[in-house]
Amino acid sequence: MPPGAPRAAVVLSGNELLDGRTRDTNGHFVCDDLSRRGVKVMELLTVADDRDRLSATLRHALSGEPDLLVVGGGLGTTHDDLTAECLAEVLGVPLAENPEAMAYVEETSKAIAARRHLDVEATFALARRQAQLPAGATPVPPAGVAPGIAARAGNTRIYAYPGVPYEFQRMWLETAASLERDGFFPDVVVRMVRVFGVGELQVGPVLDALPHDRLELGINVGGGEVTVRLRHRREEAAQAQADALVAALEAGVPVYSTDGRTIDELVADELRSRAANMAVAESCTGGLLGARITARPGSSDYFAGGVISYSNQAKMDLLGTPPGVLAQYGAVSEEVAKAMAEGARAALRADYALSITGVAGPDGGTPEKPVGLVYLGCAGPGGTSVRRADFPGDRDTVRTFAATAALHLLRAGLSP
Amino acid sequence: MPPGAPRAAVVLSGNELLDGRTRDTNGHFVCDDLSRRGVKVMELLTVADDRDRLSATLRHALSGEPDLLVVGGGLGTTHDDLTAECLAEVLGVPLAENPEAMAYVEETSKAIAARRHLDVEATFALARRQAQLPAGATPVPPAGVAPGIAARAGNTRIYAYPGVPYEFQRMWLETAASLERDGFFPDVVVRMVRVFGVGELQVGPVLDALPHDRLELGINVGGGEVTVRLRHRREEAAQAQADALVAALEAGVPVYSTDGRTIDELVADELRSRAANMAVAESCTGGLLGARITARPGSSDYFAGGVISYSNQAKMDLLGTPPGVLAQYGAVSEEVAKAMAEGARAALRADYALSITGVAGPDGGTPEKPVGLVYLGCAGPGGTSVRRADFPGDRDTVRTFAATAALHLLRAGLSP
Repeated sequence: MPPGAPRAAVVLSGNELLDGRTRDTNGHFVCDDLSRRGVKVMELLTVADDRDRLSATLRHALSGEPDLLVVGGGLGTTHDDLTAECLAEVLGVPLAENPEAMAYVEETSKAIAARRHLDVEATFALARRQAQLPAGATPVPPAGVAPGIAARAGNTRIYAYPGVPYEFQRMWLETAASLERDGFFPDVVVRMVRVFGVGELQVGPVLDALPHDRLELGINVGGGEVTVRLRHRREEAAQAQADALVAALEAGVPVYSTDGRTIDELVADELRSRAANMAVAESCTGGLLGARITARPGSSDYFAGGVISYSNQAKMDLLGTPPGVLAQYGAVSEEVAKAMAEGARAALRADYALSITGVAGPDGGTPEKPVGLVYLGCAGPGGTSVRRADFPGDRDTVRTFAATAALHLLRAGLSP
Repeated sequence: MPPGAPRAAVVLSGNELLDGRTRDTNGHFVCDDLSRRGVKVMELLTVADDRDRLSATLRHALSGEPDLLVVGGGLGTTHDDLTAECLAEVLGVPLAENPEAMAYVEETSKAIAARRHLDVEATFALARRQAQLPAGATPVPPAGVAPGIAARAGNTRIYAYPGVPYEFQRMWLETAASLERDGFFPDVVVRMVRVFGVGELQVGPVLDALPHDRLELGINVGGGEVTVRLRHRREEAAQAQADALVAALEAGVPVYSTDGRTIDELVADELRSRAANMAVAESCTGGLLGARITARPGSSDYFAGGVISYSNQAKMDLLGTPPGVLAQYGAVSEEVAKAMAEGARAALRADYALSITGVAGPDGGTPEKPVGLVYLGCAGPGGTSVRRADFPGDRDTVRTFAATAALHLLRAGLSP
């Protein structure tokens, strides 16, 4: 982060986050969002539903004198919900019934009772506890049931929200919008440069060779790609450094996107702009590529469907792969990848078709065809191209990399 | 957790965990593993690569007097790697070169230099830093490059590992095995009860109606299922409470598994035991069900493949869905789900076939066929069954729930 960025700490409470039941989503969400807004998150502290440890952790978070402290969880109706109480203790104030919070609680209690056919009075009685705020704090309007808490400790702005991800995330975004209006966030530019075909070891030296003291650089490696994030204040000197770095990356490594778009978005946009559609023929990925393409709303505009040709019989029956080709070259081969792609293009009546056939492992590898060997095919109006790849890693990694590499093969085929 | 369980804290360091680049895996892994071993994790503290905050956070973690403190990250070769230094500060001892650690570092440096064709001396010079341990600490044998650190603070056993997930996780499991031999972990029994077809609101009261003070109960809701985890010490009274609770759940709600197996595992085992195979026909899920089935190694034993019939044309061409049925009832209908399942069973020459057709959203819903409406079909030797479901939530949730519900439909069809 550029020098002088505001600093934040995040505290989450909940036993379910610490016993393997639930993977955190709120912490990752708010850290990512803060980071995009130019705030440096110093700590993400997850603590059990325990009065002593929650108070100690809040105190510890405040000891770093962050500009912002975001708290998630512990605002429900049970005795495990300790956030208001612990915040009051740490701020050195009593808990007090807040009339504004009480109005929210009454309103949401009525709505819930109506929706779930519960007794209004009983529901409200249970929920009244949620209107107890540290004295001097103000309620944050609820996105679901419980109101949040806004408070101050020295220069630290404190916001607490319920832990339900939908509520937490919506309430944080509301707060962020109001902080934005107050000018709390620095004016920061974020640029993403996406690279496919080389690793971190090739990208790193390109970055190191140029000055970037006015930038915060983050390299991320995942799914077979390298992503470089450049962040800087909106100022000429930083902009110049960023422009030079992006240009050096484009000259030195296979950059495929500098405008933020992922390979999935690029392929979708390109197909849409040509009014073309595509199909898939998947063997070792078993539907993963199709699932990924159709994860995007509106994908029926350009995705016809596909064949999961897991067995050789399916390759022959549904894709017309010649039995002789399968027998001669084996299912994991350049020839079968080509036949699968062409077969899917014909069977689905699509403009383009991608095929994937490989050894995902952990079993099934041989010295000639080891685990990680994958052939990718792309059939289109101009012909068929096939690529061989050797992916490292476990079954999941090989399958994910294969799907990504297939999309890149299509993009290459779609390029003018 | 039953009373008297050992308590643990986890500290992770790394800017990449706090700026949205990387999602934590080590913390979740070790919390889950500790929890299974009967240890209560009090805190999972993630902190930036910052000397003051890392020291303060380690001090805060120790202030809770945990029996175990696991530290991840910050053991590399750069100036950002502060764990050894901060641990020494917090323990009140100097850093000192540890001969045993130096032997590890020398050995791994040579191996890396050879593998990457680097200069041995230069590599070793860079890595020597990793042999600096807090005085009195002992090295943990490396799983990759850097050795870990084992130390004591009062009654707290401290273990620090590099943050690379492969290294962290392997080194933790080595430590855990040695702690197991020392009798550090309580003798704990974990039972999982899996429920499909009702929500948390129906499961909760069954649990509340019986005594469970000797159990730790965890309810997890996700993917369309409710999972109840019961944990207790291996003792008669707790065992009796657990047996009674499991029996009450089986009597009161649709329990489908009490032996830990997931629906995916049950379906795989059942197909294997019958030497039967299956196929899929997927519309709105676009390959998600196939991808999930083939995520399991060895799935080619019972999975023939499938058709991703995203377009109506594909439904007609590849599954033989009659155009008249599509025209009369629409693609999202009981009739089309039936035709898709039967078509996939024939096209893939499979014993069983599942079909999914629905409105995943966010667009495409109508008053008669709203977002979340999904028809599931299951064709088998005994005929075809179809189920209508109305799933809540966003596109991703609808698709995930549909895949899960389809597997449950197959399991019902496979039941004796």
